[in-house]
Amino acid sequence: MRTQVAIIGSGPAGLLLGQLLSKAGIDHVILDRVSKDYILGRVRAGVLEEGTVRLLDEAGASERLHAQGLPHGGFSLAFDGRNHRIDLSGLTGGKQVTVYGQTEVTRDLMQKRESGGERTIYSADNVTIHDFGASNPFVTYESGGKTHRINCDFIAGCDGFHGVSRHSVPEDAIRTYERAYPFGWLGVLAEVPPVSHELIYANHPRGFALCSMRSMTRSRYYVQCPLDDKVEAWTDERFWDELRRRLPKENAEAVTTGPSFEKSIAPLRSFVAEPMRFGRLFLAGDAAHIVPPTGAKGLNLAASDVHYLFEGLRDYYVDHSTAGLDAYSQRALLRVWRAVRFSWSMTMMMHRFPDTGAFGQKIQEAELDYLVHSRAASTALAENYVGLPF
Amino acid sequence: MRTQVAIIGSGPAGLLLGQLLSKAGIDHVILDRVSKDYILGRVRAGVLEEGTVRLLDEAGASERLHAQGLPHGGFSLAFDGRNHRIDLSGLTGGKQVTVYGQTEVTRDLMQKRESGGERTIYSADNVTIHDFGASNPFVTYESGGKTHRINCDFIAGCDGFHGVSRHSVPEDAIRTYERAYPFGWLGVLAEVPPVSHELIYANHPRGFALCSMRSMTRSRYYVQCPLDDKVEAWTDERFWDELRRRLPKENAEAVTTGPSFEKSIAPLRSFVAEPMRFGRLFLAGDAAHIVPPTGAKGLNLAASDVHYLFEGLRDYYVDHSTAGLDAYSQRALLRVWRAVRFSWSMTMMMHRFPDTGAFGQKIQEAELDYLVHSRAASTALAENYVGLPF
Repeated sequence: MRTQVAIIGSGPAGLLLGQLLSKAGIDHVILDRVSKDYILGRVRAGVLEEGTVRLLDEAGASERLHAQGLPHGGFSLAFDGRNHRIDLSGLTGGKQVTVYGQTEVTRDLMQKRESGGERTIYSADNVTIHDFGASNPFVTYESGGKTHRINCDFIAGCDGFHGVSRHSVPEDAIRTYERAYPFGWLGVLAEVPPVSHELIYANHPRGFALCSMRSMTRSRYYVQCPLDDKVEAWTDERFWDELRRRLPKENAEAVTTGPSFEKSIAPLRSFVAEPMRFGRLFLAGDAAHIVPPTGAKGLNLAASDVHYLFEGLRDYYVDHSTAGLDAYSQRALLRVWRAVRFSWSMTMMMHRFPDTGAFGQKIQEAELDYLVHSRAASTALAENYVGLPF
Repeated sequence: MRTQVAIIGSGPAGLLLGQLLSKAGIDHVILDRVSKDYILGRVRAGVLEEGTVRLLDEAGASERLHAQGLPHGGFSLAFDGRNHRIDLSGLTGGKQVTVYGQTEVTRDLMQKRESGGERTIYSADNVTIHDFGASNPFVTYESGGKTHRINCDFIAGCDGFHGVSRHSVPEDAIRTYERAYPFGWLGVLAEVPPVSHELIYANHPRGFALCSMRSMTRSRYYVQCPLDDKVEAWTDERFWDELRRRLPKENAEAVTTGPSFEKSIAPLRSFVAEPMRFGRLFLAGDAAHIVPPTGAKGLNLAASDVHYLFEGLRDYYVDHSTAGLDAYSQRALLRVWRAVRFSWSMTMMMHRFPDTGAFGQKIQEAELDYLVHSRAASTALAENYVGLPF
């Protein structure tokens, strides 16, 4: 088989790139080692920046998003027993974010893709990328007992942190930067109305808590927990109790509880690989970087990578220029580090760290106090939260 | 002896409080365990906020400051080989700081005090404060082989971190918050013109460096160094070499070197004691809190404490109200924590930390990059640097 761009990974990054290429008439194939149902079963966050929404508009996959997504013009920082609203719209000249689950974004993109008749190969075993340092790269995979080969011009590695793309790069060609945080997030989904119509990020001496939502009838809540906690040790009752202890009284009393239908613990990590281009291989999204979920930048960063990569590929095929591809890594990484910085700083400010003691807690409260009382500091937070420009 | 306010400590905090009380006609005595010459021999930094200058105006001790102090409307953040100016005046509606050595502030206040004939007792041994929990506190000290007693209404503890005032408070009545940083500052004074007419704060993989000055012919330079370094191991030549390695090329080439006439290593620490009032004892300045020198908040914080304490004492003696004294600890601590937060965050952003590795260095560069490219973030930095309002 022959194509122009082989995309590894059928998550939101690969699917979004695929749709943009489709519309520009650039031939491509998407391969994924798992099935479509497996991908749609993954639970992910979902706070979309306006730039991400615009890209989904451009990809023609935003109809349901605009109908069902919840526009949020602010959120709350809770500490020292009180809520302080960050007026995102007021501080950023009218910008907002849209709460819409990442799984739904993926579903919409898949549906759009299917109606367009583009090629997607799911459950591809042993996906291997070859010769991306030379001018004729190719991808092999196994399916139905046979080995298949896809010749291509470029490979887009959109296959996440554990995917084959980054792992195919020789170690001495890549620099990695990493920080693991000494705690996890215990997340719960429940079919109950959210405690507030906006998100609440809570700093509490017992640890961080986040009140989020998928819709006005489905809540997503998180509490910071030790990394070695087992999810089985967290009954629903224990979870609700702990959540309420970390919220201001007004919120704690208003939480509607109910049986959880999803409960899991995720570790928090910052990770960046540099560069993001290796010859004819381009990494995008989680394949190149991971951010902790605080501030919800993961999906949005994948979207801006895809935007830059698409521009490079369009330049190449439509304008016969390599300028965009040559600039890809540097352009993407500039924005990556800004989002990595923001996620790191919000993580540092909101969580209880085992080693920082009473001084650490007081400094966090001083940070938050300054943040909510200084228009400049609130604006800096808001402009990052709604998303720095692409 | 009988007075209204016994001030322990003849540093800038005690002297400034003394002058303000003088002008309000409130009787007071200053005691210090060391001599005047010893105090004037201490080398300290000197970047004054406008609020501090205003207080010195109020105290009538700012004539030389206005004649010789250097107004600075900006400073430079240097990282990744380049300088980025923070336009303090432009970002804060015209505010600036004044570079004028703390020792000079102290000298001016002492001179003013002497011309006014107020009582100061230097070289007082065994200064002890008594009964500040009751309504008739007193202070004892030894001098000339005799024990003396000063009866007073209030005691102002302006005697620094190691002073007797805070150490006289029962342990269970005080909460302390502390962070020691894993490095020191090696500081050098030299009779050479400064490399730039504004300060340069440099973040470099080898460690922090600061180009500062006392005047246009006297430079004050610092480099971050390990805590266990001995000052003897740092020849002038080694110091100048290390300083230049940490500066952007344009500055490194422009440094005028010369023999140092002062060279010392100081540890960096954040420390806050709460509350700042214990009955009739009030702590102010370093007696209650220490900040690392990054951002130059120490003296300015002492000044705002003194401002709040003076207002309380004036309320008491002139308006016969205890409201100001009752509010002192809370008012002072709100501003203390904001400055402690700022000094901490600037320290965290500018120094090499032994444990944070390559990720830590990249995050700092991302912080600095964001800071100099975002007007909101630059404004937040600037408003803290020129000083949050009293």
